[in-house]
Amino acid sequence: MKFVIQRNQLMESVQDVMKAISSKTTIPILSGMKLEATTDGVKLTGSDSDISIESFIPTEENGIVFVENIEPGSIILQAKYFPEIVRKLPEQTVEIESDEQFNVTIRSGSAEFNLNGQDPQEYPQLPKLHTENSFELPIDLLKDLIRQTVFAVSTSETRPILTGVNMVLRDEKLHFVATDSHRLASRTIPMSDITSEVTFKNIVIPGKSLNELNKILEDSQDKIEISVTENQILFRTKHLYFLSRLLDGNYPETSRLIPEQSKTNVVIDAKELLHSIDRASLLAKESRNNVVKLMTKDGHTIEISSNSPEVGKVLDEVKVDSIEGEELKISFSAKYMMDALKAINTEKVKILFTGAMRPFIIKPGSEEEEILQLILPVRTY
Amino acid sequence: MKFVIQRNQLMESVQDVMKAISSKTTIPILSGMKLEATTDGVKLTGSDSDISIESFIPTEENGIVFVENIEPGSIILQAKYFPEIVRKLPEQTVEIESDEQFNVTIRSGSAEFNLNGQDPQEYPQLPKLHTENSFELPIDLLKDLIRQTVFAVSTSETRPILTGVNMVLRDEKLHFVATDSHRLASRTIPMSDITSEVTFKNIVIPGKSLNELNKILEDSQDKIEISVTENQILFRTKHLYFLSRLLDGNYPETSRLIPEQSKTNVVIDAKELLHSIDRASLLAKESRNNVVKLMTKDGHTIEISSNSPEVGKVLDEVKVDSIEGEELKISFSAKYMMDALKAINTEKVKILFTGAMRPFIIKPGSEEEEILQLILPVRTY
Repeated sequence: MKFVIQRNQLMESVQDVMKAISSKTTIPILSGMKLEATTDGVKLTGSDSDISIESFIPTEENGIVFVENIEPGSIILQAKYFPEIVRKLPEQTVEIESDEQFNVTIRSGSAEFNLNGQDPQEYPQLPKLHTENSFELPIDLLKDLIRQTVFAVSTSETRPILTGVNMVLRDEKLHFVATDSHRLASRTIPMSDITSEVTFKNIVIPGKSLNELNKILEDSQDKIEISVTENQILFRTKHLYFLSRLLDGNYPETSRLIPEQSKTNVVIDAKELLHSIDRASLLAKESRNNVVKLMTKDGHTIEISSNSPEVGKVLDEVKVDSIEGEELKISFSAKYMMDALKAINTEKVKILFTGAMRPFIIKPGSEEEEILQLILPVRTY
Repeated sequence: MKFVIQRNQLMESVQDVMKAISSKTTIPILSGMKLEATTDGVKLTGSDSDISIESFIPTEENGIVFVENIEPGSIILQAKYFPEIVRKLPEQTVEIESDEQFNVTIRSGSAEFNLNGQDPQEYPQLPKLHTENSFELPIDLLKDLIRQTVFAVSTSETRPILTGVNMVLRDEKLHFVATDSHRLASRTIPMSDITSEVTFKNIVIPGKSLNELNKILEDSQDKIEISVTENQILFRTKHLYFLSRLLDGNYPETSRLIPEQSKTNVVIDAKELLHSIDRASLLAKESRNNVVKLMTKDGHTIEISSNSPEVGKVLDEVKVDSIEGEELKISFSAKYMMDALKAINTEKVKILFTGAMRPFIIKPGSEEEEILQLILPVRTY
């Protein structure tokens, strides 16, 4: 194998593919990165067996040449050193060559690296998914769906199914839902143009996979193709192939958790509320599991407070746009509330309470986007 | 005590003073920060008993009012929460008030913090140094002296004296020297204008103190006053008072370590050499204690290489401006060489070798600045 490649393109692909490579893998060959040169270009592959990522660098695109002098072949490189080597090469052009003994030579300007590679035959074959059961989304929108839900997955392995995001296709809508059983985050988008061929209904994607995917995808209005089989999901863009296993098991029915009526409705500036809760949580961080109190006051103000006896207390007032319904005192995790407000990311938010002991809902101020954040209160009164 | 203060000024002072406060102190009161209001302004104090820092915020400066409505007094605040509280206050103006029971109230806009303070009488009195035995330097120059030497102090407590920087006044010159016994860094500046009253000759300042001081001091051509007593050193600017203990014991005589003659002299571009060594060290990091080899070649090139059998090897060539003297093969720590090149920070450097087993010297290409970096080679041939 031999090729000459542009360093910037190689660097970008290496960084993407590294997201799937773990140094702690139990399968030694998976600590390596696969490089494969064909007459079309160079393909990099990384996998930790949960996630597999392929990044393709074409020989040329839009008239710009990325790869030249290709002698087809493949090799496995130790992934640990490769990104730093590429990053620190002196010139824009890099020549990579491997021989029959799997010795790899990387040349750039005056620098020459000789690395011990491994036999590409030993690298596991990635499954090629059938792409019939698939649909498309703009990349931007997929990133939103991930960002607005994935933070709420459980980090505990007590109920493994909750470490994933539930993706459901129902009534011409696509739902993303995540919950750690203390809070829930969901986002829904219309999918009226989806073909009837898509037959998956309800799958659970590991939160970790979505986090890595979100890091790799750059903001763009280009489309990403999503394909689902029984136990795997594939995200595919022009040059990226991101494969993740799905979680086994049935995701709990979450819709019944969401209160249908509310007793106290508040409309408020999201940033002001966020900053106020951030301040109130400063002293609460250690002593009381980061719990703050919210109390309605006189129709146009809410009071945010926290109290940790050893350190002191904080009291803050935030003006609201409107309060309707019953008076309320409620306690909740400052972290959950801040996560929810950041995920919604609109100027105003609407908070719907159903009493101090019932879960409450945070929604965008306008109803344009179907985002719903639900938080269980903490018993303190 | 009561005062109203501008948040930005308070924030800056709090950050400076925090550099002296350790949460791991064995003297509980020192985990606090002292606030003292007088009619002149507000003074903040932090100390870990090795380093003490005072920062003063005057009531006004250049016609800008920083502190108002002062009721003199003082209080000790828990330092752990204070910086974050100040940073997150909603308004530019902050009111701080304490009562007889050491309760502290911090108000800004709609936010009110009530904190448990402590009795300022319990805070240790900082020693006030006599300022006769003192001299001045531009802050920029002091920062250079620190930056170019302090990285070479020992991090091991086997020889505690080597964890400090040796400051010597001799022959109308000020010398800063640091060594961990594997390498040495020194910088000398002329001090012809120093008064004969300055009587200190040879002291050792803890490296940690100089690192913290360097972080606090902003680049400026303003002067800093340096005063020395038997066991303490004080650095004083207009609003900052930085006191450090000195290390006990005699610093080793280092001048005899420096070879007076050389056998191979190389003049080379500092950045190119730095990048080349950086690349060669990539594979050397784990297996061989970060050792790289340098070999002279044909009068206008040196070869930098490293070899770690499990991973592979690197070979790099760097053009030199000149090589004089004997041919040479030498091995040394890539980290030490990179530290030295960064400290010198000139376009060209001169490297003076005295054989593969002898310490070598790195100097700036031009002789304007008296910087000298010395590195002991590693035996590999």
